[in-house]
Amino acid sequence: MAEAIATAVRGPVLVVGTGLLGTSIGLALHRQGVEVWLRDLVAENVRTASQLGAGVPAPGQGAPALVVVCVPPDLLGAEIGAALATYPEAVVTDVGSVKSAPLAAVGQHPGRGRYVGSHPMAGSERSGPLAASSSLFDGRPWAVTPHPDADPGAVAAVTALAEACGATPVPMAPDEHDRAVARISHVPHLLAVLVAGRLADAPADHLALSGQGVRDVTRVAGGDPALWEQIIEGNAPAVLGLLSEVRGQLELLIEAVTTGERDQLGALLARGQAGTQAIPGKHGGPPRPQRSVFVSVPDHPGELARLFADAGASEVNIEDIHIDHDPGRPVGLVELLVEEARADHLLASLESRGWVTHR
Amino acid sequence: MAEAIATAVRGPVLVVGTGLLGTSIGLALHRQGVEVWLRDLVAENVRTASQLGAGVPAPGQGAPALVVVCVPPDLLGAEIGAALATYPEAVVTDVGSVKSAPLAAVGQHPGRGRYVGSHPMAGSERSGPLAASSSLFDGRPWAVTPHPDADPGAVAAVTALAEACGATPVPMAPDEHDRAVARISHVPHLLAVLVAGRLADAPADHLALSGQGVRDVTRVAGGDPALWEQIIEGNAPAVLGLLSEVRGQLELLIEAVTTGERDQLGALLARGQAGTQAIPGKHGGPPRPQRSVFVSVPDHPGELARLFADAGASEVNIEDIHIDHDPGRPVGLVELLVEEARADHLLASLESRGWVTHR
Repeated sequence: MAEAIATAVRGPVLVVGTGLLGTSIGLALHRQGVEVWLRDLVAENVRTASQLGAGVPAPGQGAPALVVVCVPPDLLGAEIGAALATYPEAVVTDVGSVKSAPLAAVGQHPGRGRYVGSHPMAGSERSGPLAASSSLFDGRPWAVTPHPDADPGAVAAVTALAEACGATPVPMAPDEHDRAVARISHVPHLLAVLVAGRLADAPADHLALSGQGVRDVTRVAGGDPALWEQIIEGNAPAVLGLLSEVRGQLELLIEAVTTGERDQLGALLARGQAGTQAIPGKHGGPPRPQRSVFVSVPDHPGELARLFADAGASEVNIEDIHIDHDPGRPVGLVELLVEEARADHLLASLESRGWVTHR
Repeated sequence: MAEAIATAVRGPVLVVGTGLLGTSIGLALHRQGVEVWLRDLVAENVRTASQLGAGVPAPGQGAPALVVVCVPPDLLGAEIGAALATYPEAVVTDVGSVKSAPLAAVGQHPGRGRYVGSHPMAGSERSGPLAASSSLFDGRPWAVTPHPDADPGAVAAVTALAEACGATPVPMAPDEHDRAVARISHVPHLLAVLVAGRLADAPADHLALSGQGVRDVTRVAGGDPALWEQIIEGNAPAVLGLLSEVRGQLELLIEAVTTGERDQLGALLARGQAGTQAIPGKHGGPPRPQRSVFVSVPDHPGELARLFADAGASEVNIEDIHIDHDPGRPVGLVELLVEEARADHLLASLESRGWVTHR
């Protein structure tokens, strides 16, 4: 596992591409006191990232110790090759969502030993430097994917980058990584897109019945189509393997619903339920039993503050919070998730302070 | 639209089936001072619901004014028919997720004018009386689905029930309702199940890369397979129509990824993005631009209270909160979503009080 204290990253670090990820890396390294240089085809992005404190515009001369390529997937191969050629002493990495394709593009470049791919498992359905955060990577997995000819020093440098950004480095072979993200990111994204596509021209009175479920299922489908087009095409073989599995399961599902074969439908549903339980829980541990405490909260400033001040007095640790977003609620309803054994205590404590709570 | 003050519900109300929905209805009506009787095949469920304050065990004699049938979908037709026969003066409704099937089961029952189906758009991936809440329905849509022969008095009584529970009644024909929920609930559920099914026997090191996206997409698939089996079969025609559309789109998707036809893939992704934007926003209005403010918060009691007390002093309305659930974070990272124009003020205010914030 990662050391508690991050390995030092040797600067200057050149960040190529100051979108969401590049700017966030600049902010995270800046937090560690590392010198960061910023470059982007769009000058405005460099200015924005620089003003946010992500680093300084790359100077005309001098050589970075590490280049982090954060450009869209289609441009990765060219930018990685250019960085290897321009800076013959630098370690080069990228943060693309697919790792086999850029590696193939680097091909037989004489400097390829200095290239080690990586992929932080962090992002957002928003994009651009203004969505960036120095905390984007805190505690997140960050895949580090060395190829067989990678220099050990380059692997160490990229591992140190992940740690300096607050992430947990996860070493993995490039093709293994690509199969993993097809399953836990790319195919979920594509199926969310297919669900959301069915909403695009639905009658308004049908959509008015939307609850939290459909919002959650489709949220990621709000991501930038131009970016996802490149990610999916870049990982086509692994994605197609899984989409073909999904097609087979969809056929079974349609058959089960058509014929009314309950056992077959039940088996598919049970397999899905088992899949949700296979995702690791908070801090990697198994999920603990939790209970929801609901509190009515007027939708204006200061009320949440008052609630949490009062909840704090009860000394109960709040594991998660959900503020209802459904249309039509006259006041906000806040759901506090707490350990099951502590819920009654929290309820009593809030009620004694005048809150309207609900089982 | 719904009246601000709920129409009175005439009691006693008999709730048949004291699971999540039945118990929540009992709690909500009890809040309004309505007399509630509880019945369930499982005596333990009645005891639990009664102890929670959802009502009293149904007495051996006397007649309810309103019967709310909250049993699993397979049993709806029989229980609705029994209620119409047993209580010849009572209005009867049910809260099942599908409305055509129970209506067909009631068939030519002489009392069918007293039956009006309904469906609150509220639920949980959890089930049973212990998951119930009197606030489950607050501000939620509650479809009221009269058939052509329904008595106007029965329609008014069921509308009043929805309002008394805090929900917004949405009148809709039964078959229209079933097409709507196929699109915004049943098919999203089934595709979440197919995604989650791909995780069920994935290697642990693949799952270790899971981020918030796959958690959101698959959450609903954690729901009870036995219940969903009945819901899906009960709405088979509408579900099959949409699954067939999804199959066609999946074929297009596989073809686009196979051939590398970017335009076709891009069009599918753009359609999904448009679909996410079609879902109505908070309080039914269009989404306002928001920005995230990230704050590091130690994962123990009282810290959130301190944060919200300090945030409250800044007079910024917090639209949503997200506490990161990803494994491995050493401290909690809390994301506060606020109106874009107010974010800088909140950041400065929190920083001045010693919080570690992150853009």
